[in-house]
Amino acid sequence: MRQSDRGDVDPFIVMDVMEAARKAEAAGRHIIHMEVGQPGTGAPAAARAKLAETLADPLGYTVGLGLPTLRAKIAQHYGAWYNVDLDPARVVVTSGASGAFLLAFSALFDNGERVGLGTPCYPSYRQILKAVGLNPVDVPTTLAHRFQPRPADVAGHDLDGLIVASPANPTGTMLDADALGALAQACAAKDAAFVSDEIYHGIDYDTQPVSALQVTDDVYVVNSFSKYFSMTGWRVGWMVVPQDHVRRVERLAQNMFICAPHASQLLALHAMGCTEELEANKAVYAANRALMIDGLRAAGLTRFAPPDGAFYVYVDVSDFTDDSLAFADEILAEAGVAVTPGLDFDAARGRHWLRFSYARATSDIREGLDRLARFMQARRA
Amino acid sequence: MRQSDRGDVDPFIVMDVMEAARKAEAAGRHIIHMEVGQPGTGAPAAARAKLAETLADPLGYTVGLGLPTLRAKIAQHYGAWYNVDLDPARVVVTSGASGAFLLAFSALFDNGERVGLGTPCYPSYRQILKAVGLNPVDVPTTLAHRFQPRPADVAGHDLDGLIVASPANPTGTMLDADALGALAQACAAKDAAFVSDEIYHGIDYDTQPVSALQVTDDVYVVNSFSKYFSMTGWRVGWMVVPQDHVRRVERLAQNMFICAPHASQLLALHAMGCTEELEANKAVYAANRALMIDGLRAAGLTRFAPPDGAFYVYVDVSDFTDDSLAFADEILAEAGVAVTPGLDFDAARGRHWLRFSYARATSDIREGLDRLARFMQARRA
Repeated sequence: MRQSDRGDVDPFIVMDVMEAARKAEAAGRHIIHMEVGQPGTGAPAAARAKLAETLADPLGYTVGLGLPTLRAKIAQHYGAWYNVDLDPARVVVTSGASGAFLLAFSALFDNGERVGLGTPCYPSYRQILKAVGLNPVDVPTTLAHRFQPRPADVAGHDLDGLIVASPANPTGTMLDADALGALAQACAAKDAAFVSDEIYHGIDYDTQPVSALQVTDDVYVVNSFSKYFSMTGWRVGWMVVPQDHVRRVERLAQNMFICAPHASQLLALHAMGCTEELEANKAVYAANRALMIDGLRAAGLTRFAPPDGAFYVYVDVSDFTDDSLAFADEILAEAGVAVTPGLDFDAARGRHWLRFSYARATSDIREGLDRLARFMQARRA
Repeated sequence: MRQSDRGDVDPFIVMDVMEAARKAEAAGRHIIHMEVGQPGTGAPAAARAKLAETLADPLGYTVGLGLPTLRAKIAQHYGAWYNVDLDPARVVVTSGASGAFLLAFSALFDNGERVGLGTPCYPSYRQILKAVGLNPVDVPTTLAHRFQPRPADVAGHDLDGLIVASPANPTGTMLDADALGALAQACAAKDAAFVSDEIYHGIDYDTQPVSALQVTDDVYVVNSFSKYFSMTGWRVGWMVVPQDHVRRVERLAQNMFICAPHASQLLALHAMGCTEELEANKAVYAANRALMIDGLRAAGLTRFAPPDGAFYVYVDVSDFTDDSLAFADEILAEAGVAVTPGLDFDAARGRHWLRFSYARATSDIREGLDRLARFMQARRA
């Protein structure tokens, strides 16, 4: 049968690493997983217990924009975390951040329009854009500018839209209020849409992340219950859109998704009340991060920006290899540590980079770092 | 902020009816809901009880194509229901039928390509196609041909793809094996993709529905756990694709959705074992259908094709009105019965048609038909 060009998206290279790791484990080896980008924890226990009680209800479709109680709670969250007074009408509950991006791209862009991505970045931005007939444009960023795009890039790359992420995957770096404001302004000046991916908010360390809503209303903010709220498999997230985009996004959501999963919406509502458990998760990430920064440096892997947030470190390994995929294979085979080659995040330069995730248990991180240190020492010897 | 043309999709007209019904109820009136297209039942009770037991597990992401156990069970289902020997590798678990259509359209079509819809049809086909930059093409069908497209339409409308639904919404009519085979052949002859929406399979009456997989492997079959399995709000469905499309759809699914909701996948697996409860639901639809056919005729609403499946009757009301929206308003106001104007399903001819849903309790159907009969009698008087 016919196949489209737009559907011909790149494979995830990390999948090959995961498959190799799985095979090694099946063969009896012990592998430390620093490749996986999801929390090892589940949704908060109290929230799951509450959900179990409501499973006797039919849980049919919700309205397209999501449960009003959840939308109200999310709006309150902006008051509590950012001191932003947000109208709940602007909150759209989505089928994960993935669903939010699909909605945003349909609402904002027409066929072939140019949407900028500060590379390295989350690979699915690029693939989703392509899959719906849009034109993803790589905007190379640098370690010197902490891997974030700059205002001049909007006109420089002739963009119709720009996606930023703060904290970012794979680098963990953030944009402050000034930087977000300048990017929002550059987009407004060129009639380019500004999309702010804030899914790692809440997983931050020395500095509180800034929401784009603190500097402008002229933005689509995407967020998720998968990271801080630890609800990956439930596929629920949210989006905040400008007031005059609500009706258009509502119609798109009704047609493209009908609604986000009802049970997941209820669980999200319950999870928002489980601060103690969520903050305990966060304390684990913070401990892991401190270990990572010291441990990678001790292993001789020194060229990275210490992450402001998320649970990744993106490391320049060009002193050791020109082929990060082969290098990741070598680390897996010899050290028993699975890591992600940079090629997934940056096709042009990723062969010089690796991403290390520290989302799992602290004991795993400690063991993984020991193995990396021994591996690097043996390699130098 | 900028807005796209593709994102400018039509509103659902039924939403206005639902809002009017809600207001009438808020004002103390009793309304019979024949507008709603979802089962009144929830997921099977035993399945929900099993799911509640597993909520202690973290339920993170599943692999992109879905839980292997669920894919295997779905493949077996084709053996049991259709005597089709299906490789589980061809089964893709999706975020509802909605997610399946988004995947299918990305995998099959490029910007601006022409995808035919036999009108009247499910309105979201058209809106999703538009929202992702494709070109929905209305293929008018007739009561004489039981509202289904014909093989000559594929070349006649210069289509790059054709979506058929059997049983169809809003008409409840089916395609038999010969008709499906002829449409598949017409598509293959023109290199048009053939997409078969089979979400109402299992809700059928005198005749067992035919799956397109019984006549060809060169098809995307879309199905859902929302209707027969009564799991609307859980947002889980599936798709069967040609063997050589599996990898492309897997990559698209990983990027566009990551995975379908994990808990919903588990619930679906459990629900597939709850035949007794599901067949009891079906018996209610069958009883309702018999009441509808007699009751609509008794009310003087005689111009419809008796539905082969689903839970809708699509009625030609051109003897009574040129404005089905106004007629629906009148029925709601005077009879206290909410129904859907045909305009949602057929922009060109829908002003002469109404859709009556019989998905709810039999007592409601009986009362609704009594009210309709009195309303029509008063109108004639």
